[in-house]
Order: sequence, then C-alpha cells, then structure tokens
Amino acid sequence: MTDINKAIESLQWDKEPRGLYEPIAYALASGGKRLRPVLALTAAAIFGGKEEEVLPAALALEVFHNFTLLHDDVMDRALVRRGRPTVHVKWDDNTAILSGDQMLIEAYRLLEGVPGAKLALVLRWFNEMATGICEGQQLDVDFEHADRVAISDYLKMIELKTAVLLANALRTGAYIAGAGEKEQEALYEYGRHIGLAFQIQDDLLDVYGDPETFGKAIGGDIRCNKKTYLLLTALATASAEDKAELEQWLLVSDRDREKIAAVTTLYTRLGVREAAEAAIEKHTAEALQQLERLPQNSATEQLRQLAEKLVNRTS
Amino acid sequence: MTDINKAIESLQWDKEPRGLYEPIAYALASGGKRLRPVLALTAAAIFGGKEEEVLPAALALEVFHNFTLLHDDVMDRALVRRGRPTVHVKWDDNTAILSGDQMLIEAYRLLEGVPGAKLALVLRWFNEMATGICEGQQLDVDFEHADRVAISDYLKMIELKTAVLLANALRTGAYIAGAGEKEQEALYEYGRHIGLAFQIQDDLLDVYGDPETFGKAIGGDIRCNKKTYLLLTALATASAEDKAELEQWLLVSDRDREKIAAVTTLYTRLGVREAAEAAIEKHTAEALQQLERLPQNSATEQLRQLAEKLVNRTS
Repeated sequence: MTDINKAIESLQWDKEPRGLYEPIAYALASGGKRLRPVLALTAAAIFGGKEEEVLPAALALEVFHNFTLLHDDVMDRALVRRGRPTVHVKWDDNTAILSGDQMLIEAYRLLEGVPGAKLALVLRWFNEMATGICEGQQLDVDFEHADRVAISDYLKMIELKTAVLLANALRTGAYIAGAGEKEQEALYEYGRHIGLAFQIQDDLLDVYGDPETFGKAIGGDIRCNKKTYLLLTALATASAEDKAELEQWLLVSDRDREKIAAVTTLYTRLGVREAAEAAIEKHTAEALQQLERLPQNSATEQLRQLAEKLVNRTS
Repeated sequence: MTDINKAIESLQWDKEPRGLYEPIAYALASGGKRLRPVLALTAAAIFGGKEEEVLPAALALEVFHNFTLLHDDVMDRALVRRGRPTVHVKWDDNTAILSGDQMLIEAYRLLEGVPGAKLALVLRWFNEMATGICEGQQLDVDFEHADRVAISDYLKMIELKTAVLLANALRTGAYIAGAGEKEQEALYEYGRHIGLAFQIQDDLLDVYGDPETFGKAIGGDIRCNKKTYLLLTALATASAEDKAELEQWLLVSDRDREKIAAVTTLYTRLGVREAAEAAIEKHTAEALQQLERLPQNSATEQLRQLAEKLVNRTS
C-alpha cells in the first residue's frame, strides 16, 4: 500500500503567507496513526481499486481529522498534542483559528482529485460526516453542563464525534474502488462499530489501563468527572446507596488519588468494567460480522486484524 | 429576481443541537447587502440562466461570507456586527469557533445543489476563492506588524480579502447559466475591479465621509494607524519633512481628535485624497469596460448601475 506518511509529506505547504501555512505543516507532521486514510485505502484494496484514485479522498479525510484536532485543542485549551505544543500554544489562538479554517478548506481542495463521476456523492458524504462531527463536538460540550446524560445519548455523541469519520473513510474508499451499495454499507457499519468499540475502550483504559503502556496518567476522566461510558453506566445501574456514594465523590476536587481509587473500586463492584468490556465485544463482533458480507482477501483480513487489535490495545 | 432574503430565511436551522445551529441562524439573520448572491444571480440573468440552478451556489457564497465575518470578529475581538452583539459576545469564543466551522461546512453543503456537470469547476473555484480569503486575512494580520507595506502588497491583500469573492460570485453565476469562458472572465474582472474600488472607497470614506451618513465615527483608521490606501500612499509620496510629521503623528495615541485633524490635513495637502479618488475611478472604469464584452440587456445594465452606485456611495 502507498506509504501514507510519505503521501502526507508530499503535500506542499511551503507557500506564502507563511503565517497561514506553517501551522498546517506543523499540525500534519505530528504523526498519529493515519487510521482514516489507511481504512480508505484498505477498503478500496478489497475491490482492487486504483490507489491513485482513492488517495485524494483518503488524504482529505486525514487533513480534515487534523483540522478537527486543531480547533478542538483551542476550545479545550489543550497544551500538548502527540507530545508537542498545540498550535495555539506554539503560535496563538488567532493563528489556530485561521490556519484551522484553511485546513478545512484544504480538505475540500483534496476532494477535487476524486474521479469526476464520483465527486458528487463523495462530497455529499464528506459534508454529512463533517456536519456529524461538529454536532458530536457540540453534544460533548452540552453533556459537560448537563445534569443527566442517557447512555444512548452518549453513544450517539461518540458515534457522531468519532465513528462516522471511520465509517465514511471506509465507505468512500470502497465506493471509489467500484464496490456495490451493499458492500459500501457493510464497510460503513464495520467502521461505525469499530469506532464505537474504540471510544468505549478509551474510557475503559483511562480507568483500568496499565500505567506502563497507557501513555498518560490513569484516572484522568474520574478526576474531572468526565461523563464516560463507565460513569454513565454506574449512575444508571447503581443502587440508591451506591449512587449516593458515587455522587459524593463527584463533588470532591482536592483528593485526586483517593477519589480515583474509590471510584475505581465502585466501578469494579458495580460490574461497570464488565459492562464496558461486553459493549466493546459486542461492537467488535458486529464489526467482524459485517466483513462476512464482503469479498474475502488479504485486505478484508487486514480489517479483521485491525478490529481485533483495537479491542486488545493497551494505549 | 428571487428574493435573496427570503431564500436565506428558508434555510432550516431549527435543528439539534441548538448550541451549534442557533448562532448560525443568528449570524445569517443580521441582514447586510446580500451583495454576493445578488451578483451571482444578476450575472446568471445576463445569460438567461435558470435561477433555481444558480441559487444553491449563490447561497453558498453568502453563507461562506458570513462565516468569514463570524471568525474574523473573534480574531478582531469585534463587539458589534450590523448593530447587534457579535456571536462570540452573545455566546462565547468556543461557540463562535465551532458554529463558524459548521457554517463553512454548510456553504459546501449548499454546493451539492449545483448541477452535476458543473459541480467540479464550481467547487474548484470556490476552494480557490476560500483559500484566497484566508491568505488575504493572514496578510492583513502580517501587515499590522510590518514596518513597511508597499501599495502593491496592500492591493494584493484587499484583492484576496474582498475582491475575489465578488469576482467568483459573478463568474460562478455566469458559468452555471451557460456563459462562455470569455464572458466568465469579463465578469470575474468586473467583480475584481469593483471589489478593489469598493475597498479603497472604504478607506476614503473613513477620512472624508460625511459623519451624518457614514454610520460610524470618522477617522477610526487614522486613530489606530491602520495601513490604509491613504496612509500607504502618503508614506510613499510625501517629502522627507512631511513624512517625518506623519510618522510623529503615528506615535500619538492620546490626542485622537487632534491627530485625526492633523493627518487629514496632511493627506489633503499631499494629494492623497485625489490619488485615492483616481484609483477608485480607474478601477470603476475598468469594471465598466469589462461589461462591454457581454450581451447588453437589463441585467448588464444593473451591473453598470451597481458599479456607479458603489463609487458614489456615502456609507
């Protein structure tokens, strides 16, 4: 397969004005898993698609994803991204806003490379996905201030914020490569389910991850009362007594270590860990099932392995 | 012609999450001249284009324009837009960033309505225009901190920031309506020149406008040393002695009324007013000349009148 990192490096940002393009080059050079273009190209490979026809859309999805990170980091006041200062820290807020806007436009410029007959649908899907991600981001903000969040609303939020981008990458790659509608749909559903599994796994690792391999401090979500799959499940299933204890801990903000230990113990006692593991397994199984609807070859096998790797990841 | 305000009102924003869409509805309901969609529809009318085929792109240009205002207002910390609090004041910065992002995406969603065979080129032009506007905005920021700015660089900046959007609105309307390449080009150039004339007129009105009709305080640009066409012309053409006097005034920040009066007197003595008026007339004449290359009908006549109205405007 095309080396995605090389393809991203080959995008030209040494243009004027430097103040606009340098932050874009910086944001894109920070690595990351390049999961979205890999998914698009792998989906296309199942159908023997020409990589040069799929690559523009695959790169558009990666540039778009990095645009969302750039603006999210401004809104979250995040200081570090992939081990380096965020754009608004290295430059300033205005630079992050404007260069982010240009990154979003650059994503659409890359779509110009989609084969003409397929542009209209690829653009429509891209817009739909981008809209979903902004809606998901807004829901995430809304949930922070909400008293109660239903688990179903939480799942809707992570679906919009994370899963639809993976799903759309797969569907777009398959469509450009000539897949039929049923196959596009199977890949979309595969992507949606691995996205959901991925996000719940994220919540789980924050509490039960191995500090050695996780990469960041364990319990960060508990410390700041983040409404994760675990917390919402605990609140929804606990007895009145346990719920009262949990809600007491939510009011604590000065005893981090004690709070993390106590809430983790509560989670474990309430079976929240098993519930999350079961949800991850369910979504992974549904993702794998979708792959049965596709031609079976080495690319399909790669997607199978990817789904299994995501469930078993430790960071 | 289609009532543009009605068409904009008919866009549906009563969707969830409210926190994302309410600021978009607010930003688009603030009125304004709707100049860009009017230009697109008028250009199309010259060629007897079907309005329903042009309207989606016309609305996309208006939504895009309002997106740039929304994000510019955050970056400029502007408090008021068209007599109402700006979005980041009425809500907050994060809302303005995210709803602005969604507005940009909504502009691209509207492009889905462009007739299929014309989508690819309309999208390419739209991307090129959007890129120009971000580059122009960045140059504007760069110029604030620059010691010297050449008049030619200033003209390049206002061309990118203002003129290409008008130019592209006209070209896009004409193209969708079936105009030939030469005609598209004539309309593009017409739009570029009225855009330049408009912007220089803006600089002129800030100094020589009638306080009764101008709508804002006269001399705002002088007060904050804004590098306008007038200031740059003065710096480029003044004798050493006049230049020294002007530069002294640039250091003054506590005697606004005196500064505005003195710099205005200097401008007048240096012939800067005439230079600006000559530049506006030159660009207006070039715009009008482009119209000679087009079929002559009532729509062409409207564009002629529009060019003349822009030069003679007082606010």
